[in-house]
Amino acid sequence: MKKHNFNSGPSILPQEVLAKAARAVLDFNGIGLSILEIGHRSSWFVDVIEEARSLVKELMQLSDEYEVLFLHGGATTQFMQVPMNLLDDGETAAYCDNGIWGSKAAKEASLFGNVNVVASSKDKDHTYINKGFAIPANSKYLHLTTNNTVEGTQWHRFPVTDIPLVADMSSDIFSRPMNFNQFSLIYAGAQKNMGAAGVNLLVVKKTVLGKIKRPIPVIMDYKKHIDANSLMNTPPVFAVYVALLTLRWIKKEGGLKEMERRSNEKANLLYSTIDSLPIFTSHVVKEDRSNMNAVFFLTHPEQEAPFLELCKQEGMIGVKGYRTVGGIRVSMYNALPLESVQAFCDLAKQFAAKRG
Amino acid sequence: MKKHNFNSGPSILPQEVLAKAARAVLDFNGIGLSILEIGHRSSWFVDVIEEARSLVKELMQLSDEYEVLFLHGGATTQFMQVPMNLLDDGETAAYCDNGIWGSKAAKEASLFGNVNVVASSKDKDHTYINKGFAIPANSKYLHLTTNNTVEGTQWHRFPVTDIPLVADMSSDIFSRPMNFNQFSLIYAGAQKNMGAAGVNLLVVKKTVLGKIKRPIPVIMDYKKHIDANSLMNTPPVFAVYVALLTLRWIKKEGGLKEMERRSNEKANLLYSTIDSLPIFTSHVVKEDRSNMNAVFFLTHPEQEAPFLELCKQEGMIGVKGYRTVGGIRVSMYNALPLESVQAFCDLAKQFAAKRG
Repeated sequence: MKKHNFNSGPSILPQEVLAKAARAVLDFNGIGLSILEIGHRSSWFVDVIEEARSLVKELMQLSDEYEVLFLHGGATTQFMQVPMNLLDDGETAAYCDNGIWGSKAAKEASLFGNVNVVASSKDKDHTYINKGFAIPANSKYLHLTTNNTVEGTQWHRFPVTDIPLVADMSSDIFSRPMNFNQFSLIYAGAQKNMGAAGVNLLVVKKTVLGKIKRPIPVIMDYKKHIDANSLMNTPPVFAVYVALLTLRWIKKEGGLKEMERRSNEKANLLYSTIDSLPIFTSHVVKEDRSNMNAVFFLTHPEQEAPFLELCKQEGMIGVKGYRTVGGIRVSMYNALPLESVQAFCDLAKQFAAKRG
Repeated sequence: MKKHNFNSGPSILPQEVLAKAARAVLDFNGIGLSILEIGHRSSWFVDVIEEARSLVKELMQLSDEYEVLFLHGGATTQFMQVPMNLLDDGETAAYCDNGIWGSKAAKEASLFGNVNVVASSKDKDHTYINKGFAIPANSKYLHLTTNNTVEGTQWHRFPVTDIPLVADMSSDIFSRPMNFNQFSLIYAGAQKNMGAAGVNLLVVKKTVLGKIKRPIPVIMDYKKHIDANSLMNTPPVFAVYVALLTLRWIKKEGGLKEMERRSNEKANLLYSTIDSLPIFTSHVVKEDRSNMNAVFFLTHPEQEAPFLELCKQEGMIGVKGYRTVGGIRVSMYNALPLESVQAFCDLAKQFAAKRG
């Protein structure tokens, strides 16, 4: 049976990326060795990581002020590593609390300096994105999560401010073009739109670094990673390679503009279907809805279990909402075909016709 | 041409591990999804990580006092994470300086407490392992690197002490049986004897944890990882799976006893050949020689380049010594067949016959 992979992350990857990754595990580029057994300082791998760094700069149209790194870990590592590098003892950072991950990021930052939560949508269960809030001038940076995977909201416009913007883009990186040069630092765990779990993308404006007096452990120091061309220690070689394959695929398919066109098409189909069926209820403010993760509920909670069971029978993976939120979550990352969203919508209509 | 992979890490893996890993990238266990696109909280992956944790306990014959974790990053991450968890402000840790990695570990620890280098073989370029040194009773722990990948030395007996022993086993984990219960904490980057780069194995005696007053960032906190069964955040899924495949292979081949028998056989062949050929010089004290990494030099330095060129022509990968040491390094990890060592020795003899 055909599987429809709506996983929130790790999530669906393009079939050709998987095919090429599998081939490289057996024999990388015909050299007679696996990608898993080549040295990270060999020209074979240096070429991989350099092409990946360069493709990130190209796809995001980053100016020369930016450096691109591939680092160990996921976004949770960056919750710690960002303030380690940017927030000195006694300084204050502004954080937006628009979901579980942003809130966790703020908590970690409080170990390194003062945290000022300048915007929070907790009053309405994180079902909207704050707008027009004040950012105190003494803020070292403003941290926000561009897409809230768990709650199904997404920033569609960003604050215009002189305070350096720091963004966790783990769940919507490479899904839409924007002026990425408005951010001073961007990070993203790879396992949604960029590849396999185990590697972080880090994009940083060099001028924000080197201002901290507190010593930074070498493995956490962005500056030292930049000096080492993202090869300070053995990187997660395979995850970097899968990221390269995914970046090549994005470019070949038409870049971020095309990714956005597909995302809009999938999200429009999904949300218009849900909105047309009274058996579903969505709490997220419409203008803040995420194009990546649609979060909604069965209007009659007793219908949730049979609906999830039906999804399972039809090969639909990962549609159960996050454990703290419940309900349904349909994740529509770059690699998810429109056909999968169509199949879900058909099933939803069929369920509504029988049970509505 | 057949390649002989003497890489120091990432390094050679068993062919059947590579074949199974490649298959899982296409379709994991026949479920119709890639290992790269399944959720880390799915029963599919929970089974993987639980089997891997359990195989580590079995192969190392660990008592119930120990927990096994798979964490993001490599040994360099642990250089920071170990003192974060074990060394409080003002406390002192004892470190052995027997090579470049141990020395780096000590440097990172000094950011968290006092470091007392209780043993150093720096006086002779780290060509031996210290013995019979004193460990002050106030030491929070004693850190040592069981195998020095760069310098080619290995600990064959360990200090008997009441001070908790902490060991970086990155380059000889699973290569020999020993009483692992003599250590309070063991860590190892996976990319030598255990799989692909991007994951750390951590073995820890629970009783040494929870004694630090300084707050620990959540992603660095061993205790929180234990509470979450090594699934606090998205782990490096593929690297954990490759570790599981490698652990299964080790068990099937006969466990650590058989790995040691093979290592001894390979190392004896290599060292006896080198010792018999005057064109080679080895500076490492014989009783401290590493079974994993043989480090030696051409007696006449001008012969190094032609010898390395010959190795390259014959498909021998990774035999150039570490950049700070130079010379030749032959790494003989678990997956390296005896045939590759034989091929290297034959080539060495052939070179000696012509140039000796």
